[in-house]
Amino acid sequence: MNKEELRDLILRKKSVLCVGLDTDISKIPSFFKDKYADEDIVFEYNKQIIDAVLPYTVAFKPNLAFYESRGVSGWISLQKTMQYIESKKEEVFLIADAKRGDIGNTSGQYAKAFFDQEQSGFNFDAVTVAPYMGIDSVSPFLAFEGKWVIILALTSNPGADDFQLSTCKETDEKLFEKVLRVSSEWGSDENTMYVIGATRSDMLIKVREIVPEHFLLIPGVGAQGGNLKEVLHLGWNNFGGILINASRSIIFAKGEEDFAEAAAAEAKKLQNAMSSFISAHK
Amino acid sequence: MNKEELRDLILRKKSVLCVGLDTDISKIPSFFKDKYADEDIVFEYNKQIIDAVLPYTVAFKPNLAFYESRGVSGWISLQKTMQYIESKKEEVFLIADAKRGDIGNTSGQYAKAFFDQEQSGFNFDAVTVAPYMGIDSVSPFLAFEGKWVIILALTSNPGADDFQLSTCKETDEKLFEKVLRVSSEWGSDENTMYVIGATRSDMLIKVREIVPEHFLLIPGVGAQGGNLKEVLHLGWNNFGGILINASRSIIFAKGEEDFAEAAAAEAKKLQNAMSSFISAHK
Repeated sequence: MNKEELRDLILRKKSVLCVGLDTDISKIPSFFKDKYADEDIVFEYNKQIIDAVLPYTVAFKPNLAFYESRGVSGWISLQKTMQYIESKKEEVFLIADAKRGDIGNTSGQYAKAFFDQEQSGFNFDAVTVAPYMGIDSVSPFLAFEGKWVIILALTSNPGADDFQLSTCKETDEKLFEKVLRVSSEWGSDENTMYVIGATRSDMLIKVREIVPEHFLLIPGVGAQGGNLKEVLHLGWNNFGGILINASRSIIFAKGEEDFAEAAAAEAKKLQNAMSSFISAHK
Repeated sequence: MNKEELRDLILRKKSVLCVGLDTDISKIPSFFKDKYADEDIVFEYNKQIIDAVLPYTVAFKPNLAFYESRGVSGWISLQKTMQYIESKKEEVFLIADAKRGDIGNTSGQYAKAFFDQEQSGFNFDAVTVAPYMGIDSVSPFLAFEGKWVIILALTSNPGADDFQLSTCKETDEKLFEKVLRVSSEWGSDENTMYVIGATRSDMLIKVREIVPEHFLLIPGVGAQGGNLKEVLHLGWNNFGGILINASRSIIFAKGEEDFAEAAAAEAKKLQNAMSSFISAHK
């Protein structure tokens, strides 16, 4: 999906909501596990969540860790989940939240893992990438036409302070600012996005100075406590320019029979707030 | 495997060789693909490489990207490879070269993926981790007794210059030095190692000032052109303290019927040089 298509999708659905499929099997309610004991529990759970929240969301973001933690079976659940989303034939932006990144020839293999459906079975639109190893760890992802790389810049976790907020002596900028400035030259706002934690919305102003045109993927609005309205105001640009992720607060909204209805209600609540903002700013 | 056991293994085998199982299916010779057309080609290739090089190596390091690029089938090849190594009943240190790292609860899931055999099927000794997200992205791996985290500090690729060599204004040290200094406090030299590229052996002196007791995983001696003797001299400490990785130069040493013998010869050549050094320095 290209930038214009993503903008059109956002304006049409009046939503910048990305639902994180962080489907921790240990958090799936026990009634559900009993009911689907002979099935692929994670896939069955994802299916019901996807059906429930799809009207309100423009993107899905499976977090790879929650699949890999179950080894081969987890990768099978992920593959079935992606095939299910594709079978819906609805336009939706698909992000592999994988935080990959390695030397050039290895990053090329990771790019195939998420973008080359013929070889890997996966056809994501975007993958999250860690910038620590520099240009050749990111550029192999950019070589895939029509695909996106989402570079970690300023994350929402406490450990972000350890290195991302260090000041670089040569240029007197924070490391995350350097990451934004330098890496924005590797690709363009047509194939590069950035992860910016919503728990740091004060720094969104700085981010928008450096990358005014890029899309930002903003986690931390749900369980991590970021402020939705502030993030919309500070992050929005003339292309929409933001995807706001919520994971646990939606997919594990309720541990009872009506868990999917509860997930839909949470997604709808967020989308309602987004809709008012988008109607006023498009 | 703990630090003393790893040292003993190194002294017994007179080797610090780690063989990188970067088994790119497109580099497997066509005669081999024809011969094993109905089998799991990557697994069959790995088996013969493992048998050939095991006498000379103390560690194996599958590079996850080369398995993930084939999706679910790739993860199956990886699982069979690991089960095969375990079936040999020989002591060997097993590294998942995965370059993972995410917020705390997610890193906890990645730790399960590589360390929790009951849940994921994998029982690696160590996993490589990117430090960009800071302490809570690394500490969940350290919570696993008897396991290791190998943190990227100074990598061997050209892009390492982009951020790792930035000077931090507050402390007047390079970012990779800060990563070493700060992260060495998160765990200890009993559960933390560092990736230091052999192509930067001049900087090994600096690294050893900051982390004299830690093990270093040093890639780049083979195809990437680092100098073996220099690395041994600068990296060696009283616990051995280094694992030197070679991947393509061993596993794809020759594209003919005797590819496994050629791999063994390459591994033996490296181990011979290591053996002379270790005999003189133990």
